[in-house]
Amino acid sequence: MIHPRMATMLAFLATDAAISPALLSRALRASVAHTFNAITVDGDTSTNDTVAVLANGQSGARAITAAASAAYKSFGAALQRVCRALALAIVEDGEGAQRVIEIEVRGAPSERAADRVARTVANSPLVKTAFAGADPNWGRILAAAGRAGVRFDPARTNIRIAGVLVCRDGREYTFDEAVVHEKMLAKYVPVRLDLRSGRASACVWTCDFTQEYVHINASYRT
Amino acid sequence: MIHPRMATMLAFLATDAAISPALLSRALRASVAHTFNAITVDGDTSTNDTVAVLANGQSGARAITAAASAAYKSFGAALQRVCRALALAIVEDGEGAQRVIEIEVRGAPSERAADRVARTVANSPLVKTAFAGADPNWGRILAAAGRAGVRFDPARTNIRIAGVLVCRDGREYTFDEAVVHEKMLAKYVPVRLDLRSGRASACVWTCDFTQEYVHINASYRT
Repeated sequence: MIHPRMATMLAFLATDAAISPALLSRALRASVAHTFNAITVDGDTSTNDTVAVLANGQSGARAITAAASAAYKSFGAALQRVCRALALAIVEDGEGAQRVIEIEVRGAPSERAADRVARTVANSPLVKTAFAGADPNWGRILAAAGRAGVRFDPARTNIRIAGVLVCRDGREYTFDEAVVHEKMLAKYVPVRLDLRSGRASACVWTCDFTQEYVHINASYRT
Repeated sequence: MIHPRMATMLAFLATDAAISPALLSRALRASVAHTFNAITVDGDTSTNDTVAVLANGQSGARAITAAASAAYKSFGAALQRVCRALALAIVEDGEGAQRVIEIEVRGAPSERAADRVARTVANSPLVKTAFAGADPNWGRILAAAGRAGVRFDPARTNIRIAGVLVCRDGREYTFDEAVVHEKMLAKYVPVRLDLRSGRASACVWTCDFTQEYVHINASYRT
């Protein structure tokens, strides 16, 4: 049951930066959107997730008080790196997970559309089982994208798995299946869909769907 | 990849009734909505599904020409029974499926809301793996309903599994777990959620999510 919005998870972050509560909250919300709220193990959410951040200002560095400041930007970027590392650790620890899969969608008409496509692909049981078998089944990825409720032209779409172009203009692009299979056995496998229908992008992380996932969740007694 | 809208499936129906093309089409659409389009194995749709019906009028019975007629109603009901039987056969034959699960949602504010709740429960990997283990985990059912994007009060919700009340007013209702577990080992397990927030209802059929599903779909090579 891991698909934060938020999932069964408590995260506490602490910093010695001096930063106003409003800016600290703003930086956290921005970070969470692209980290804790951009991961999914099975699409099932829970009711008791928390991410809290505390700042005590003991660093001695100048206080961060303006959102437009360079200090705020670098604080926000650092916070996002920390959140991302913690969020990916959750996916990596997903029930029965063998690997983390990064689903990046580019060229979407809007960020919302990109996010929707990325989440639909990330939660597709067929995509996730194909990754369990390290099978470069790009057709399942394109099919999941196609049912996301977002308008795009499949005949313009390109897909890369582990850096290798496997689908170009919606058709199979000649690739060495054994090579891609080998790359898909890694702990971290990036997938990139370029819809070529706009400029927006989104990134979601998920894990593969293994027999062990079923074993754990079927035998877990109420 | 079975979640018709429509999925990889060709269904051809034939009748010797005499019925106008417009009414035949209307009866088919009505039947499909509550049968072929109300089943899901994994939420993944495909691109090449078809349900076709042909009528040759050779029965000798009077032609059906009015939607308000008793003849149309009984024809429509018969057509729906046939469609339902075929649709349930698809679910029963789902990859690795041990059983068919009927998810009936009642007391919803609208039919659309009922359908949304039913589909979210039906596609929840946690619900489906619990059914693989014949585990009366009503908490997962309620949690899936809660993330369906429909407003309802969980503290009013009742849930029955295989006819046994397991959750009343959103809390566990005392039941014999061994008895319900036994009932859940059947080939057909009905689940009923009563949201008690309206008068609309919907019914969706799915199957359990087994290790065999993962085995089949992870080893199926592109």
